[in-house]
Amino acid sequence: MKLVLNAGYLPKGFLAAGIQAGLKRRARRDLGLLYSGAPCSAAAMFTANKVEAAPVTLSRRHARSGTVQAVIVNSGNANCMTGAQGMRAAETMAAAAASVLRLKPAQVLVASTGIIGRQLPVDKVLQAVPRLVEDLHPRGFSRLADAIGTTDTFRKEAAVSFSLGGVRATLCGVAKGAGMIAPRMRLATMLSFLATDAAVAPALLRTVLREAVEGSFNAITVDGCMSTNDMVVALANGAAGNRPVRAGSRDHGVLAGAMRAVCTALAKMIVQDAEGATKFITIDVTGASDGRQAEALAFAVANSVLFKTAMAGSNPNWGRIAAALGSIPARVDARKMTIALNGRIVLRAGRPVPFEKKDLLRGREVHVVIRLGQGKAAKRVWTSDLSYGYVRINAAYN
Amino acid sequence: MKLVLNAGYLPKGFLAAGIQAGLKRRARRDLGLLYSGAPCSAAAMFTANKVEAAPVTLSRRHARSGTVQAVIVNSGNANCMTGAQGMRAAETMAAAAASVLRLKPAQVLVASTGIIGRQLPVDKVLQAVPRLVEDLHPRGFSRLADAIGTTDTFRKEAAVSFSLGGVRATLCGVAKGAGMIAPRMRLATMLSFLATDAAVAPALLRTVLREAVEGSFNAITVDGCMSTNDMVVALANGAAGNRPVRAGSRDHGVLAGAMRAVCTALAKMIVQDAEGATKFITIDVTGASDGRQAEALAFAVANSVLFKTAMAGSNPNWGRIAAALGSIPARVDARKMTIALNGRIVLRAGRPVPFEKKDLLRGREVHVVIRLGQGKAAKRVWTSDLSYGYVRINAAYN
Repeated sequence: MKLVLNAGYLPKGFLAAGIQAGLKRRARRDLGLLYSGAPCSAAAMFTANKVEAAPVTLSRRHARSGTVQAVIVNSGNANCMTGAQGMRAAETMAAAAASVLRLKPAQVLVASTGIIGRQLPVDKVLQAVPRLVEDLHPRGFSRLADAIGTTDTFRKEAAVSFSLGGVRATLCGVAKGAGMIAPRMRLATMLSFLATDAAVAPALLRTVLREAVEGSFNAITVDGCMSTNDMVVALANGAAGNRPVRAGSRDHGVLAGAMRAVCTALAKMIVQDAEGATKFITIDVTGASDGRQAEALAFAVANSVLFKTAMAGSNPNWGRIAAALGSIPARVDARKMTIALNGRIVLRAGRPVPFEKKDLLRGREVHVVIRLGQGKAAKRVWTSDLSYGYVRINAAYN
Repeated sequence: MKLVLNAGYLPKGFLAAGIQAGLKRRARRDLGLLYSGAPCSAAAMFTANKVEAAPVTLSRRHARSGTVQAVIVNSGNANCMTGAQGMRAAETMAAAAASVLRLKPAQVLVASTGIIGRQLPVDKVLQAVPRLVEDLHPRGFSRLADAIGTTDTFRKEAAVSFSLGGVRATLCGVAKGAGMIAPRMRLATMLSFLATDAAVAPALLRTVLREAVEGSFNAITVDGCMSTNDMVVALANGAAGNRPVRAGSRDHGVLAGAMRAVCTALAKMIVQDAEGATKFITIDVTGASDGRQAEALAFAVANSVLFKTAMAGSNPNWGRIAAALGSIPARVDARKMTIALNGRIVLRAGRPVPFEKKDLLRGREVHVVIRLGQGKAAKRVWTSDLSYGYVRINAAYN
């Protein structure tokens, strides 16, 4: 199973599109569509933010039907905090795509990303939908990837092929995200659309997606800020012709591995592209008493503004890691704590180890290992530094 | 009751000192002492961080005795994550001050602030203690204030005089803090030393201190990062000669008001001096169903990196306020939410109100009012923006 980045293609039976509808200030693609000719099993996960965008509310409802065939998505406007008018706009988007594609509106999911609190210029969307459908193409996935970007500086697209009972199947995904990225135990991430031609029932697809998201989109943070619009959608149309994947089977393991591989690749791309980032940081917490503790501690470090600014300065000030570990309601024992930076132990069982600071964190990749010495649970998360660039982008945005 | 900033004086019977012991890289005062000739009622509050500095552990123990007469404090080194050696260093500091002042070590509290994970050069402290004691002076409070500073750019000192049953009493306080500032429901703040010549029993002093801290040091955040060394100490030596303040009496109210006034002034100075800050931001959450919800939501906004960077750009992107409000496990209803920025309503009952962005947040002071429309509880917190300056200071520090 080989991961291909920016493959460009889609699984059998899927088409995608991405065009310019005039929603972004700059002349960029800002309206996208993912479509399967055949009905799909659908699984979707949404933000845990209680201030939820209209398309999230609508898509939650539509995803329940289990017979989704298309996702329409815009960037340049989040359609969030837009009241009843925003809800009507989301419904109009779904209906417009459904009408041209000859589907029911409930078979269409809607996603949006961009500025919060401004009414979506739905007329521009309506005008563009016929052109969007015309743009649908088996190699249109990259255009969709481009259309969903906001502060993203590169396209996030990944694909794997794998065998299900001797039948070749493919899973492809796109994602967008560079800021307002934080997981919240349950989902809270960004936009990602995953398509596979594997045959799999909605319930099992949901299980596979949830498990993959846990170790990927839910294991990254850029700024600890949870979005109002996050959505991950997986569609499976069965066009590969495999016998439907059964829970617990070998094929289940293969599909799960494919989903993990694509989601992890996309999640890491988001951190690579984090707003203003100059570092790609991997944090491993090991020796925790349970997984929940490991995760909470890893994110306490990953979201510490002082840790992140130290990283921006290639400054191995591990005291800020220790301070972050102690700051949350989780049991930690400073006397058992061991910390390594890029393979160099700087704290061993609570005692500082002198080390040569110069050049230790010089490169772009930083690996932080925290051993708690309490148990056997572990968690890996990825994050970025907090640099001038992040401040520049977010002071100016809007 | 008039608040005097940088008064310079101390309440009757108190002396203070601040000298240079060579703990800071730059030639600055870095060792301070607060001393009362008579035994004091003492109240102390400490960080909730589980990675706790040695002086915090020691002072917790000593504060229990209730007969504290001195506080010795150093900057330039936090004496945190320094193991058994660090604990011995804190004990040595207390013993050295006690010896010269003819007190028991248990009557001396110790506080430290500075870099984490480096052994305190305790020899330098020992060498300096006799000189420190010689420096004690009724007007030495400003020197103490200077000695506890780290990234602080100005001295934080405040005093009030008040009448207790016709007897004149005074309460003076100093504080340090500019970064690694976050409250955690219980205490988590910075260093502050408060001295009063009022006569009040330790238990009531503790009540008065705790209540004052709740609305002051526990109502500010700079970066959401909880320190390992935070400590607030109040000493009351009774030298004013008032009849000891009784719980529930008029005098209790007066003393509580004095404590609140000094703590609030010092807390606001910390936010004014926040690392790199270009804005002083007041956040009022009103109409909450209870105080805990109001507080959690106010801090969710105050600690949002996206909100803080928007403020750095004088960017009234209130969508980030709404997103932050929805991101924590507290009940909020977007349809009832009203938000005002510097008196201008930008969201009314969940509906965006168009407004002229230009110049709205141009000044240094920003006032955010969030009405939840759920109940009657309210909370006010103060915070700063997250600017290039914050990144510069914290990328380079150490």
